[in-house]
Amino acid sequence: MRALVFNKKLEYVTDYPVPEPKENEALIRITHAGICNTDIEITRGYMDFKGVLGHEFTGIVEKCSNNKLIGKRVAGEINLGCGKCLYCRNQMQNHCPGRSVLGILNKDGVFADYITLPVGNLHEIPKSISEEEAVFIEPLAAAYEIIKQINISSSDKVCVLGDGKLGLLVSQALATTGSKLTAVGKHREKLSILDKTGIKTILKAKFRERDFDMVVDCTGSPSGIKTALKIVRPGGKIVLKTTIAEKSQIDLNQFVINEISLIGSRCGPFPDAIKAIKSGKIDLYPLISDVFSIEDGKKAFKQAAKKNALKVILKIN
Amino acid sequence: MRALVFNKKLEYVTDYPVPEPKENEALIRITHAGICNTDIEITRGYMDFKGVLGHEFTGIVEKCSNNKLIGKRVAGEINLGCGKCLYCRNQMQNHCPGRSVLGILNKDGVFADYITLPVGNLHEIPKSISEEEAVFIEPLAAAYEIIKQINISSSDKVCVLGDGKLGLLVSQALATTGSKLTAVGKHREKLSILDKTGIKTILKAKFRERDFDMVVDCTGSPSGIKTALKIVRPGGKIVLKTTIAEKSQIDLNQFVINEISLIGSRCGPFPDAIKAIKSGKIDLYPLISDVFSIEDGKKAFKQAAKKNALKVILKIN
Repeated sequence: MRALVFNKKLEYVTDYPVPEPKENEALIRITHAGICNTDIEITRGYMDFKGVLGHEFTGIVEKCSNNKLIGKRVAGEINLGCGKCLYCRNQMQNHCPGRSVLGILNKDGVFADYITLPVGNLHEIPKSISEEEAVFIEPLAAAYEIIKQINISSSDKVCVLGDGKLGLLVSQALATTGSKLTAVGKHREKLSILDKTGIKTILKAKFRERDFDMVVDCTGSPSGIKTALKIVRPGGKIVLKTTIAEKSQIDLNQFVINEISLIGSRCGPFPDAIKAIKSGKIDLYPLISDVFSIEDGKKAFKQAAKKNALKVILKIN
Repeated sequence: MRALVFNKKLEYVTDYPVPEPKENEALIRITHAGICNTDIEITRGYMDFKGVLGHEFTGIVEKCSNNKLIGKRVAGEINLGCGKCLYCRNQMQNHCPGRSVLGILNKDGVFADYITLPVGNLHEIPKSISEEEAVFIEPLAAAYEIIKQINISSSDKVCVLGDGKLGLLVSQALATTGSKLTAVGKHREKLSILDKTGIKTILKAKFRERDFDMVVDCTGSPSGIKTALKIVRPGGKIVLKTTIAEKSQIDLNQFVINEISLIGSRCGPFPDAIKAIKSGKIDLYPLISDVFSIEDGKKAFKQAAKKNALKVILKIN
C-alpha cells in the first residue's frame, strides 16, 4: 500500500505491507488525514519514532469481527492500551505504561491506505459531519480535555497563547464555557478566524502581568511557558499543551513563590468533540490551509511546517 | 540593637537601628528565631536581599497601639501586603504584588533584637507551646498549606522527598490526613525521627516508577523535581516546595504526556500549625540540631548549612 514513512527522514513508498487486524481490531481504509504539529516535531526527533506517521484521520471500516461496523465511517482514539493494567481497567488507557500510540509510539499511523485499530477505539461519525471536519475530531478532543480536567467558571479570565491549529481549536472550545477569553497570537490572518466567532483576540500583545486566572500554552514554543508565567495571576493555572523536542530552562521558583499550578494536558474525549462539531459550535473550514494527495506527502509536510500554514489535509482515498 | 545583616556577606553588628512601628504595627522583642534553608539560599544570592535576615521567630510585643497585645507572646506571618489591592482585599496578602516579606524582600527580618510587624500578622502563642516549638510555627504553616491547597484522601499514595527540616515537617503534617505516606531521604538519623512517629520511611530508595498519586518535593535540590517526575503516576500531582537560586532544565513534555500537575506551594495557615503543635500531633524537639546566641550567628549559619544539620535556633533574648 501507499504510505508516508519516517525513518530518520520522510519517504513516500508504495510497497508498504497492509496491516493485518488482530482479534477485536478493525482494518480501516483511510479517506482523509490531517498533519499535526506533533508529526512535524517527530520529523525533528521528538519521540524517536520510526514508521508510518500520522494520527488524525477519518476512514471506512473494511474488515472487522463485528459485522455491524463494516462500511461505517469512523474516527479513532490514538492510544492502544494493554487492556490489563490498572490504567486500562480504570478507563485510563491513554496512560497505560505499555501503550502504543498511533503514528507516535510503536504503531504505524494513518498517512497510508490502511491502518488497524481496536474496535473500542472507534467512534462512528454522524452523517452531518463532512470528511474535512472529521479530520479535526482528534485535535478538538485534545482541546476539550482541558474542560474535562479543569472547572472553568464564567467569571474566569482565560488566555490562550498561540494562534496555530491547536490554539484556534482550544480557543473555540474554551469559548463554549462562557469564560472571559482572550486569544493571543502573532498572525493577524489566523486570529481573524476567531474574530469572526466573537472571541477577543490580541496581536503581539504587550501583556499586563499577573492578569489571567488561567493561561493555556498552545504556542508550540519554549517561549510559551515563560510568557504564561508572566501573565498568570498568583494562585492561577497554566495549562500546558505544547510538546517540543528540546528541553526548557525555566525558573521553577516562580511556581512556588506565586503558588501557580501547571497542568499538563494531552488527548481528550472524542464524544465531546463530535458533539461540538455536530452542533455547529466550532468553525473548522477556515482552519484548512491546503489539501494534498498522499503522493505529494513530502510537499504537504513542507507546507504544514510554514509559519503561515494551518491544517494541511491529505486526501488519501 | 544586635542584628545579623546580609549585604553580599553575612555580618554580626551591634549598632543596627531599632525599627519604629508604624500605625497598626507592633514592636516585637525577638526571643527565639530559626534558620531556614531560604535564609541560607539568600546568602547564596537568592532574592537579591540586603538587610537583617530571618523570618521564623517568637517574641514579645513591647509597643503597640492595641494595648491588649502588649506583653503577649506572638508568632508572625511574614508577608506584608499593601492592604489596598485586589489580593489584599481578598485575604491573599501573601500574593500582594507590592508586598514586602520579613527577612526576604524589602523588610528587615528577625535575627535581631527587635522587628516591627502589622498587628494583623500576629498570632498569640498558647502557653502550652514552648519557645523552641513556637519557632516552628511558620515552617509548619507552610507544610499545612499543602493540605489547604489539595484535597488528599486516605486512599492516596503520597511520597515526601527530602528529609531536611521542611521535609520532616511536611511528612508529619501529611501523616495527619491518613494518606498512605512514604518519606524518602538520604540520612538514616533524620528519617529515624519519622520512624518513631510511625511514618514509613525509605533510605536512598530504588523507586518504582509511576507509583505515587502525589509527590511533594522538599529536597531543596534541582534533582527533586526530576525524581518526582519519575515516581508520580500519570494524572498525578507534584507539589513543589523547593526554592533554589539556580534555574532548572526540565523536560516539560513529561507533564503533557503523562498529564501531571505541578502545584507550587509557599506560606500557609498559622492557626492550623498552632493547633497541630498544641494537640501534640507534631514531634518538634528531635528536629532541633543546635541552639546558638545571636553573637555566634555566623557560626550558627555555618552549622545550619551542614548536610547533617536540622533546625538551628538562635536564642536572642
